[in-house]
Amino acid sequence: MFELHPRLAEDTLEIARWSLCHVHLMKDARYPWIILVPARANIREFHHLAEADQITLWNEIRRASEGLEKATHAEKLNVAALGNMVPQLHVHIIARFSSDPAWPAPVWGVGEAVPYDPADEKKRIAEFLQCV
Amino acid sequence: MFELHPRLAEDTLEIARWSLCHVHLMKDARYPWIILVPARANIREFHHLAEADQITLWNEIRRASEGLEKATHAEKLNVAALGNMVPQLHVHIIARFSSDPAWPAPVWGVGEAVPYDPADEKKRIAEFLQCV
Repeated sequence: MFELHPRLAEDTLEIARWSLCHVHLMKDARYPWIILVPARANIREFHHLAEADQITLWNEIRRASEGLEKATHAEKLNVAALGNMVPQLHVHIIARFSSDPAWPAPVWGVGEAVPYDPADEKKRIAEFLQCV
Repeated sequence: MFELHPRLAEDTLEIARWSLCHVHLMKDARYPWIILVPARANIREFHHLAEADQITLWNEIRRASEGLEKATHAEKLNVAALGNMVPQLHVHIIARFSSDPAWPAPVWGVGEAVPYDPADEKKRIAEFLQCV
């Protein structure tokens, strides 16, 4: 049975459920940062998903990418499935700006997450969901 | 016209050409590290590719992932399109091990690349190409 990894439960907020993925927002106001978690048990790599799920994942990555780009006017998107710390398959989709605190490095491991102001968090979620 | 970004030309070695992507090996013996570069001009994000190219890219990512996993017995794959430094669309597929020098962090920006011994480089390329 699919169960969200405790680390993802702690660091992110679920904002939607799509056909395959649960859609989460990273609790870090420094970056508009979406995480897609395919609701399938015991999957570590995208190519271990069933063929039909792979196609759905691809479409949901595209949907999130297009939406995040539209909502944030990102200069660049970073799209990545890493999973070294959290082996449950999850895909990061991060809007990057040359003004952000990690640029041009990847965001992982750079400083500490900055909690959202509740109003900003609500706005970020609403803007993203309006664009997908 | 598609032209490989000079940074990719310097840091990687072309080892194959597939239907959409040029397949490169990162010149860094610390990690089995493949880079797929779709041979299309002026594309920065995967979702900016034409629909048919997106499907081909997905299939080529899967092909490279399965091959790299099989060739190296990786504990985890890292699959990522970042492009903060090299805006030309390219996809990293990296075999990770809990014994590697960056684990569990991402590999980017950790230390300096270690050049391959020519025999090891040849072996790594042959093993990967036999598995894809």
